[in-house]
Amino acid sequence: MKPIVGIVAGSDSDLPVMEEAVKILESFGIGYEFTIASAHRSPEKTRGYSRSAEDRGVKVIIAGAGWAAHLAGAIAAETTIPVIGVPIDSSPLLGLDSILSTLQMPSGIPVATMSVGKTGAKNAAILAVQILAVGDKSLQKKLKAYKQKLSDEVEEKDNRIKGEKAKR
Amino acid sequence: MKPIVGIVAGSDSDLPVMEEAVKILESFGIGYEFTIASAHRSPEKTRGYSRSAEDRGVKVIIAGAGWAAHLAGAIAAETTIPVIGVPIDSSPLLGLDSILSTLQMPSGIPVATMSVGKTGAKNAAILAVQILAVGDKSLQKKLKAYKQKLSDEVEEKDNRIKGEKAKR
Amino acid sequence: MKPIVGIVAGSDSDLPVMEEAVKILESFGIGYEFTIASAHRSPEKTRGYSRSAEDRGVKVIIAGAGWAAHLAGAIAAETTIPVIGVPIDSSPLLGLDSILSTLQMPSGIPVATMSVGKTGAKNAAILAVQILAVGDKSLQKKLKAYKQKLSDEVEEKDNRIKGEKAKR
Amino acid sequence: MKPIVGIVAGSDSDLPVMEEAVKILESFGIGYEFTIASAHRSPEKTRGYSRSAEDRGVKVIIAGAGWAAHLAGAIAAETTIPVIGVPIDSSPLLGLDSILSTLQMPSGIPVATMSVGKTGAKNAAILAVQILAVGDKSLQKKLKAYKQKLSDEVEEKDNRIKGEKAKR
Amino acid sequence: MKPIVGIVAGSDSDLPVMEEAVKILESFGIGYEFTIASAHRSPEKTRGYSRSAEDRGVKVIIAGAGWAAHLAGAIAAETTIPVIGVPIDSSPLLGLDSILSTLQMPSGIPVATMSVGKTGAKNAAILAVQILAVGDKSLQKKLKAYKQKLSDEVEEKDNRIKGEKAKR
Amino acid sequence: MKPIVGIVAGSDSDLPVMEEAVKILESFGIGYEFTIASAHRSPEKTRGYSRSAEDRGVKVIIAGAGWAAHLAGAIAAETTIPVIGVPIDSSPLLGLDSILSTLQMPSGIPVATMSVGKTGAKNAAILAVQILAVGDKSLQKKLKAYKQKLSDEVEEKDNRIKGEKAKR
Amino acid sequence: MKPIVGIVAGSDSDLPVMEEAVKILESFGIGYEFTIASAHRSPEKTRGYSRSAEDRGVKVIIAGAGWAAHLAGAIAAETTIPVIGVPIDSSPLLGLDSILSTLQMPSGIPVATMSVGKTGAKNAAILAVQILAVGDKSLQKKLKAYKQKLSDEVEEKDNRIKGEKAKR
Amino acid sequence: MKPIVGIVAGSDSDLPVMEEAVKILESFGIGYEFTIASAHRSPEKTRGYSRSAEDRGVKVIIAGAGWAAHLAGAIAAETTIPVIGVPIDSSPLLGLDSILSTLQMPSGIPVATMSVGKTGAKNAAILAVQILAVGDKSLQKKLKAYKQKLSDEVEEKDNRIKGEKAKR
Repeated sequence: MKPIVGIVAGSDSDLPVMEEAVKILESFGIGYEFTIASAHRSPEKTRGYSRSAEDRGVKVIIAGAGWAAHLAGAIAAETTIPVIGVPIDSSPLLGLDSILSTLQMPSGIPVATMSVGKTGAKNAAILAVQILAVGDKSLQKKLKAYKQKLSDEVEEKDNRIKGEKAKR
Repeated sequence: MKPIVGIVAGSDSDLPVMEEAVKILESFGIGYEFTIASAHRSPEKTRGYSRSAEDRGVKVIIAGAGWAAHLAGAIAAETTIPVIGVPIDSSPLLGLDSILSTLQMPSGIPVATMSVGKTGAKNAAILAVQILAVGDKSLQKKLKAYKQKLSDEVEEKDNRIKGEKAKR
Repeated sequence: MKPIVGIVAGSDSDLPVMEEAVKILESFGIGYEFTIASAHRSPEKTRGYSRSAEDRGVKVIIAGAGWAAHLAGAIAAETTIPVIGVPIDSSPLLGLDSILSTLQMPSGIPVATMSVGKTGAKNAAILAVQILAVGDKSLQKKLKAYKQKLSDEVEEKDNRIKGEKAKR
Repeated sequence: MKPIVGIVAGSDSDLPVMEEAVKILESFGIGYEFTIASAHRSPEKTRGYSRSAEDRGVKVIIAGAGWAAHLAGAIAAETTIPVIGVPIDSSPLLGLDSILSTLQMPSGIPVATMSVGKTGAKNAAILAVQILAVGDKSLQKKLKAYKQKLSDEVEEKDNRIKGEKAKR
Repeated sequence: MKPIVGIVAGSDSDLPVMEEAVKILESFGIGYEFTIASAHRSPEKTRGYSRSAEDRGVKVIIAGAGWAAHLAGAIAAETTIPVIGVPIDSSPLLGLDSILSTLQMPSGIPVATMSVGKTGAKNAAILAVQILAVGDKSLQKKLKAYKQKLSDEVEEKDNRIKGEKAKR
Repeated sequence: MKPIVGIVAGSDSDLPVMEEAVKILESFGIGYEFTIASAHRSPEKTRGYSRSAEDRGVKVIIAGAGWAAHLAGAIAAETTIPVIGVPIDSSPLLGLDSILSTLQMPSGIPVATMSVGKTGAKNAAILAVQILAVGDKSLQKKLKAYKQKLSDEVEEKDNRIKGEKAKR
Repeated sequence: MKPIVGIVAGSDSDLPVMEEAVKILESFGIGYEFTIASAHRSPEKTRGYSRSAEDRGVKVIIAGAGWAAHLAGAIAAETTIPVIGVPIDSSPLLGLDSILSTLQMPSGIPVATMSVGKTGAKNAAILAVQILAVGDKSLQKKLKAYKQKLSDEVEEKDNRIKGEKAKR
Repeated sequence: MKPIVGIVAGSDSDLPVMEEAVKILESFGIGYEFTIASAHRSPEKTRGYSRSAEDRGVKVIIAGAGWAAHLAGAIAAETTIPVIGVPIDSSPLLGLDSILSTLQMPSGIPVATMSVGKTGAKNAAILAVQILAVGDKSLQKKLKAYKQKLSDEVEEKDNRIKGEKAKR
C-alpha cells in the first residue's frame, strides 16, 4: 500500500508511543511509512525527509518527540503539508516541556498539536484520517463508523457497570 | 464565495483574536463563515452548528475560546471533519487553562491545537489552508509562495538591520 | 431507593476514583444512580442524561473526568441543578489539566470543583449531602454527626500516637 | 429581605471582585449578608460567623480570598452548610496560589471551588441560587430563564457580528 | 524534659515525614510535644492547642500538612510565637499545592515555610533550634558543632569518592 | 539603637520591597541595619557580612532577592542565626523562580521563607520580632497588641462596609 | 574587527533584548556579527548560517528566540562550536515556553541556556567572553576587572543607601 | 592526565547523574577532577575549590545539584572561567526547582544551564569539550566525529526498525 501518511519518531525510545498511531492507520487501511529522525541529532535526515515527503506522495506527517521537542516544528519549517505533533512525556518534567516546545509555534508555521503521550499518538492518526477524508467519501464513512463505535463502547461499559451494580 | 472553513469564537470578546484567522483566509481567497457559539452558554447552538457543518459544505472548523476552553472539543465531539483549536489567554492564568483544556483531548477525539492567542488564530487559518490544499494543487502553490514570503521577510529584516548597523 | 444524586464517570477507568463518592452516599443512605458517559465520545448520551436528570428526580450531579475534563461543564451547560466536578489525575500531567478544565468555567455556568482524585470524589459526595441537607433536617443531623466523627478520629489518632510515644 | 446567603470577603481589597456575587443575588431577589472576615487576621470573627450562620438562617456561604486563601476552608471546617470558594488573583502568582489553597481541601471537608476572580464570584452566586433552588420551584424557573438569557445573548451577538460582516 | 517545641501533624499519614523533625530535636536534647490536629477536621483542637501553647511553655511550633495545607497558617492566626510550616507532598500535585498554601500567607501573619517533605521537616527542627538559640549560648555552640559536622560529612564523602576513583 | 536585625537586599532595585520590613521593625522599636549585598556579584561582601553578623550582635537576618534568589541561602550557609528569606518577583516569571530558589533549601540549612514580594518583606519583619520575642516579655506584649490591631482593622472595615450597604 | 561571536535573533521584535549582548561584546572589544534568522520561517538561512559559522571564524554563537524557541537548538544541531541560548518572554506564557524549548535539549546536543529576557542576553555575552578567554590571557584579565566592577558597584550602592539612611 | 575540567556534585546522591559527564570526558580523552562540595553545607570548600580552579589549570567547571540548586551559581560567583550547571531532579518537584535555581542567574554572572538530570550531565560534558575545542583543532575533529556518530546511530536505528517492519 502506498504510504500517504508519514510517521516520524525522534528516538527509538519513542516507538511504543508512536505505535498507537500505527494501529489506527492500519485499522483504517491507510498506507504509512515509519521513520526515525531527530531534529537535533540527524538534522540532515530530518530535512531530507521533510522536503521529499510531498513528492513521495505523503499527504500528512505525524511527528512525535520528547524533551525540547523540535521535530514537528523542524518538519513544518520545510514543507507545506499538514504536520501533526505528538508531545512525549519522556523527560522528568512529565511532558510539560514537549507540550510547550511542540505547541507554541511562532506565527506562520503551524503544528497541529495533540495530547501528550500515547493518547496523543492515537489522536494524531485519527486527525490524519480526518484530513485525508476531506476529499474522500469512503474515509468519511469509516470515520463516522469509528465515532459510532466510540459511543457504543461507552454505552456497553455503562450497561455492564449498571448490570454489575444491580447484582450487588 | 461559498464558506468551506468555519470559524467559531466562544465569546464576542474573542473576536479581535479570531480576526487573525479571517485575515489569512481572505488573503488565500478561501470562503469562510464566522459564528459566535459557546460550548457552555449556548450548547444547543454549538451542537447544531457542528452537526450541520459538513452538510453545509464546511471542510474544516477553527474554534477559539478562553478559560476552561471546551469549544473545540465540544465541536469535535459532534463531527468528523478536522477541528482546529485556538486557546485564548483571556483569564488571569495567561492561557495555561485554555491550552490544557483545548489540547489534552481524550482518546478518540482529536483537536489540532495551536499556539495561544493571536499567533494561534493566524496559524489555525494556515493549517486550515494546508488541510484544504491536500487535494488542491492551486492552494499548494499559494502555500509555497506564502512560505517563501515568510522567508523573504526574514531576509529583508536581516538586511535592513545589517544596513543600519553598518551605518552606525 | 429513589436516586436523587447522579454520579457520572467519563470513562470506566475512572470507576475506582468515583467509588469513593458511592461509599459516602451509601453511608448517608442517599439514593444514587451511576452512569458512564463521555462528553467527547458519547455527547448524545451525556446530553440526554443531563437534560432528563431533573425530571427523573435527580437533585445534584457529580461528574468525574481526567485529561481535558469537559464532562462536568458539559452537564452544567444542559441543566440548572447543581453540578459538582471531580478532576481526575489520569494523564501524565498529574491532574493539572483536569483541574483547570473543570474549574475555570466561564461566566454563567458554574461547576463546583473538588480536590483532584479520590479525595475529591469523596468530598463531592459530602457536598452533595450538604446541598440536599439545605432543606432536610435529618440530613443536617447526620452531617453534624459525620463532622463530629472526623474530629473524633483525629483525637483518637492523636491519643494513640501519644500513647506510643510515651511507651518508647 | 432575610439573608439566606452569606458572602464573606477576606479583605476589603477583595470587594470589587465579590460585588459580582452581590449583583447576581440581587437580580434573583435573594437576601444576603456581606461580611469582611479574615481566616488569618480575624480568626475569632471568622469562626463566630461560621458557627452562627446556620442558626441565623444562612443556607449557603460564599467566601472569596487571595494568596494562601484559607477563608472558605476555615469556614467549611466550622459548619455543615455548603461553602463556595472564590480564589482571587491578588498576589503576583496570578491566582495559582489561591486556586490551589481553596480547591485542594483534604478528605471530609469540601469547598465548592469556582473560577478565579470576578467570573468565579459571579458563578459562586449562580451556584448558590442553584443550591437554594433544589427545594424551590420558583427559583428553578428563574434559573431556567437566566440560562435561556445566556443563550439568547450569544445568539444576539452572533447575529450582530454576522450583520456587521455582511455590510463590509 | 519540658516540651518547648510543639510539633503538629495534620494527619497520621504525615507522621513519617514529621519524624524527621523529632530526630533533630532529640539529637539537640530539646523537649518537644507531638500532636495530631487538623485545621479542617478538628479546628477546635487546633485552636485550643495554638492558644494554650505559649502558656504551656512552648516557644516555637512546627506544623506539617499536605494538600491545601492550612495547618501552619491556622496556628499562626491564633498565637504570636513563631510558627514553622512544612509543606508535605501527599497529593498528586507533588506538593505544589501545600507549598503555596503554606507559603503565601497574607500580610500580618507570617509562617516560616520550609522545603517540601522530609527535608523540610528536618530543616524545620533546625530552624526551631536556631530560634531557641537566640538567647541560649549552649545551643549556639551545639548548632556550630552541627554545622561543622555537615561540612565534615561532605569532606568525608569527597575523600571516599576520590579514593574510589583513584583505585579504579 | 543597636541593630539586632540585619536586612539584606540583593540589589538596589529590591529596596522598595524591603522597605516594608524596615517600617515594621521601626514600629516595634527594634534596631536594624540595612545592607545591599549580592550572593552572586559580591560574594565576598555577603560572606563577610554573614560571618560577622552574630559577633556584631545581630540576632536575626532578613534577606530579599529575585531571580535565582540565593542570597538567603548563601547567608544561611555561613551563620547559625535564623535567616528569613523574601522571594522578590522581579523576573518575568512572577516570583516562581525566586520562591523555589529561596524555599527548597537542602537538608541541614533552613531558610524561613516568606510570601513573595512586599507582603513577604513585611511578614519577614514580623517573624523577626516573633523570634526576638521568644525571650522578651515586652516584645511579646507588643506582638499581641499588633495582632489585636490586625483583627480590629478587619472589624472596622467590616463595619464601614455594612454601614455603606445599609445606606444604599 | 573580525567577528568571532555570532549573535542571532529569531525575529526583529527580539532586537531590543539581544542588544544587551551587543553592548557587552562591544565593551570587551570583541568582534561580532548580528543576524536575524528564524528556525521555522527561514530554516535554510539558519542552516547556512550555522554551517558556515566555523569557517567564517566564528567561535561562539548566541541565539535568542521566544515561543517554542528552537533557534539555539537548530543551530547547535548543525555545528560543533558552543551555542548559547537566550529564552525570550515574548509569548503570553512569560517565557516558560521559551525556557523549556531552549533548555531541555536531548542527549548529545547541548545548548548553554541563560536566564530569560534581557538579563539572559547580557549574560550570554559574558559567557561568550568567558569561553573565548579560555585561551586568551588578556580577556581573562578583562573578565576579572569586570567582575571586580560588579562587586564595586554593589559596594557603592550599599554605601549610598547607608549614607541616605544616616541622614534621615 | 592533568585535569582541565572540574566536575562538582552537590551531594553524593548526585553521583549516578554526574557519572554521565565523566563517561563523555573519558571518551574524549580529557582529564578531569571529581569533587563533592555543597554550596550550603560546605561553602568554604566550595569557595576554595572555585577560587583555586583556574590556577590549578581547570578551564571549565561542571556543577550539578538538586533542590534550590545554588552550586553552579556559587562557583560562578567566585571565578571567571565558564561554569556549566546541571539541574538534578532529586526533590519532589521533578527538577522545576533546580532548573529555575540554576538557570535564572542575575545580571553579570552567567551559568550555562543544561537539561535536567542525566541528559544534562552528559550534555554538560559535551559543551565542556566544545569550549575546550575553541582553541584545539584535534578536539574539533573529535567533536565532528562524535556528531557524525550521533547521526549514524539514528540512521542505524531507522534501518533496523524499517527492516523489522518489512518482515512483519
